[in-house]
Amino acid sequence: MAKAITPRSENYSKWYNDIVKKAGLADNSAVRGCMVIKPHGFAIWERMQRKLDQMFKDSGHVNAYFPLFIPKSFLSREAKHVEGFAKECAVVTHHRLMNDPNGEGVIVDPEAKLEEELIVRPTSETIIWNTYKDWIQSYRDLPLLINQWANVVRWEMRTRPFLRTAEFLWQEGHTAHATSQEAIEEANKIHQIYADFAENTMAMPVHMGTKTANERFAGAEETLTIEALMQDGKALQAGTSHYLGQNFAKAFDVTYLNKENKNEYVWATSWGVSTRLVGALIMTHSDDEGLVLPPDLAPEQVVFVPIPKPNAEIDETVEKIMAELREKGIRCHYDRDETKRPGFKFAEHEMRGTPIRLALGNRDLANNQIEMARRDTKTKVSIPLNGAANMVVEELKTMQTDLLLKAKKYREEHTSSADTFDEFKEIIANKGGFCYAHWDGTTETELKIKDLTKASIRCIPNEQEKEDGKCILTGKPSNGRVIFAKAY
Amino acid sequence: MAKAITPRSENYSKWYNDIVKKAGLADNSAVRGCMVIKPHGFAIWERMQRKLDQMFKDSGHVNAYFPLFIPKSFLSREAKHVEGFAKECAVVTHHRLMNDPNGEGVIVDPEAKLEEELIVRPTSETIIWNTYKDWIQSYRDLPLLINQWANVVRWEMRTRPFLRTAEFLWQEGHTAHATSQEAIEEANKIHQIYADFAENTMAMPVHMGTKTANERFAGAEETLTIEALMQDGKALQAGTSHYLGQNFAKAFDVTYLNKENKNEYVWATSWGVSTRLVGALIMTHSDDEGLVLPPDLAPEQVVFVPIPKPNAEIDETVEKIMAELREKGIRCHYDRDETKRPGFKFAEHEMRGTPIRLALGNRDLANNQIEMARRDTKTKVSIPLNGAANMVVEELKTMQTDLLLKAKKYREEHTSSADTFDEFKEIIANKGGFCYAHWDGTTETELKIKDLTKASIRCIPNEQEKEDGKCILTGKPSNGRVIFAKAY
Repeated sequence: MAKAITPRSENYSKWYNDIVKKAGLADNSAVRGCMVIKPHGFAIWERMQRKLDQMFKDSGHVNAYFPLFIPKSFLSREAKHVEGFAKECAVVTHHRLMNDPNGEGVIVDPEAKLEEELIVRPTSETIIWNTYKDWIQSYRDLPLLINQWANVVRWEMRTRPFLRTAEFLWQEGHTAHATSQEAIEEANKIHQIYADFAENTMAMPVHMGTKTANERFAGAEETLTIEALMQDGKALQAGTSHYLGQNFAKAFDVTYLNKENKNEYVWATSWGVSTRLVGALIMTHSDDEGLVLPPDLAPEQVVFVPIPKPNAEIDETVEKIMAELREKGIRCHYDRDETKRPGFKFAEHEMRGTPIRLALGNRDLANNQIEMARRDTKTKVSIPLNGAANMVVEELKTMQTDLLLKAKKYREEHTSSADTFDEFKEIIANKGGFCYAHWDGTTETELKIKDLTKASIRCIPNEQEKEDGKCILTGKPSNGRVIFAKAY
Repeated sequence: MAKAITPRSENYSKWYNDIVKKAGLADNSAVRGCMVIKPHGFAIWERMQRKLDQMFKDSGHVNAYFPLFIPKSFLSREAKHVEGFAKECAVVTHHRLMNDPNGEGVIVDPEAKLEEELIVRPTSETIIWNTYKDWIQSYRDLPLLINQWANVVRWEMRTRPFLRTAEFLWQEGHTAHATSQEAIEEANKIHQIYADFAENTMAMPVHMGTKTANERFAGAEETLTIEALMQDGKALQAGTSHYLGQNFAKAFDVTYLNKENKNEYVWATSWGVSTRLVGALIMTHSDDEGLVLPPDLAPEQVVFVPIPKPNAEIDETVEKIMAELREKGIRCHYDRDETKRPGFKFAEHEMRGTPIRLALGNRDLANNQIEMARRDTKTKVSIPLNGAANMVVEELKTMQTDLLLKAKKYREEHTSSADTFDEFKEIIANKGGFCYAHWDGTTETELKIKDLTKASIRCIPNEQEKEDGKCILTGKPSNGRVIFAKAY
């Protein structure tokens, strides 16, 4: 904790890596592109999981678990899907090692070659729809509303902790429906759950919208997305919900007998968020002192620091306030470590993002007060010991709200509108952030703009205003603006 | 639900498979040896996870996540470990597929061969101790008390749902300590947590004991085990806690600077329970009508069935009692489905193991009563509507206790003692269950007995009585009996 981290203004990317390391969130591993999620990072993910899991259950979903491995041939069944996912993946070809006859160690046993190679799942549509075939016969078996929490592997070339790793943790929902309309409603419902979670729990404002055909999930008819803005002006896709039409039902021949006693293909959705959200959280709120966490997701919400070190009276007062706070469901920690000085502890808990610090010394005790410091604003205020617990609870609520407001303000300040391509290039190159602009609706134009500016269409926003205009690149007609940005 | 399941007396193994299938617990998958855990089975596992996770946290452990893949060379570092785990495993050799130039579909891209093969983790000691090397420098970094919830893969030849599958879900704890004594205490603490969980939450009595050298975890100095007895008289190892000494610290060169400023190798434990516990749960309590679940682990604890179908008055009364029960934390379900008859619903909820069924018809309403049926004993009793919720809560508690008592009684009746090898063979062959007998302490004798009778030493029990005796096979001296049984 001795050395400070790189300031954002100096090198944003290095600042991010410093926080990940120094706040104890993740570590590199011996396996290329795979990270170790350290206890503090995992505790944040765990809180995200608990909250999302409850939201899924409250909306009628159940959890299940499907195999890690996918037979190679399954991937080829859905034409677009295989293009998107079969290319960079981990392939299991053998099932045994043997002692090396020519030396030390072990080698792959050539006798133990699999008849068909297995792919470590990059996503589970294929293995799940192959299973649904056995589970779905009639309209009575529908809807099927299933989610799984799992690890997946995509052999990414360039990786960054949480944002892009070869193995990552996620949830993937896979639902089956009797009608197209019901599947579309499901995709929309999850889209809304993701947006609510991002804004209310992560204090991260997001744009809800639809992906262009070019940015769609491989095998989807429509991809809905939530798009957040990071502090360096780059966008981050934080969660997607896909309407799959009958593509996977057709690929795996999943039909059901409808009420009219006719066989029909089943309609589907899939949707997921991943440990990438931890990266999004870091880049939305944190500062040059380290991690800043919204209270709802902080593993420890309040830390007590004795000044300069613990004694019987300080202990007694701290224990009393802690008991009150715990009674109110607040996660607290008393840092009694006598080998570290208060200043060191302050810096450490700032680095780890504990929302509120309460410091208590003999002089405070004599004055019947305790010093409350807020991580995000760095404001310090002495509050009366009597009623301190209630004030802390209120402050945590305020902080949760303030973080969202602050992030919204940042987004507003980094949202522009461009009417010409010169204007657009200037905004993307120098100001960054989201840029609303007209586009002619073709993939060709979309790719050309990306090629020239590195900005992609993040989404066609749900709340798109009807407005006649001309495409910034081609001048062809458009009837509403889409959101562009450089993105992670 | 139309057809009944195979009775235990006819074919125990088929009975087990029938329950797994008909209670909706698991399904076979397209991948050899890998099962799909269906929503009802997963909900049971999830309840086990929540409870165990809280027990681990309450005893000072934190969660983290380590990579799925282990570089092949890591497995060779610990000599015994590689013998035990490197042989039957899933080996990743390539990281890309390509379109088949000679036909349809995709093939492995020969250009994308990995420099070093990766093993899908069969257990994580090696990758974790390679990481701990970076995390541990001084005694101040110890103890490290980390757990992970993960999937692992062991390429088993003969698989059975939950009991033995190629991929399974588990938790694995990996702790690091400054002294041997502290590591031994940790292994014992977890051993006790496993036993408490088995008895209090699963209502499954277990013997706590130590494994013989032959049955030890590959790489451990000592393996502690909990051993349960299934209804067919076979034992099942339900959880193990290993004292690893300095074996992995030496293999991965993990040392720490002790208080005397000297470098010393770190001491370790590891411990795990898996989805195998779901299999143990099934085989401890269930009967010929289907699953029987201890109330603490039942996804639904109470089901309401309207007789013969719902109406406004029945709805109102059910909703009122359900609200009271939910207030008390009881998980309830009202089966309003009008397409199914009550008898069908009764059988279905019996199959799925719902602990208590409450049936309500107009006649019951007129008499101000409701019929309460208990899944395990099949007793039915009419109870007054007024106060029904409290009676149900009490009945659930009683059922939780009764199931443990019943299982203990079964175990007592199937526990024997043998003084001669003839006696021993007779017990193992005909009566089954646990058999206490003297053993001369050698692996040779242990293996010979197993070869002759299929019975293995389940453990040297913690509460072993000192008793001078003679080994049942060799007649050599022994000073206490060990527990034998045929085992899963």
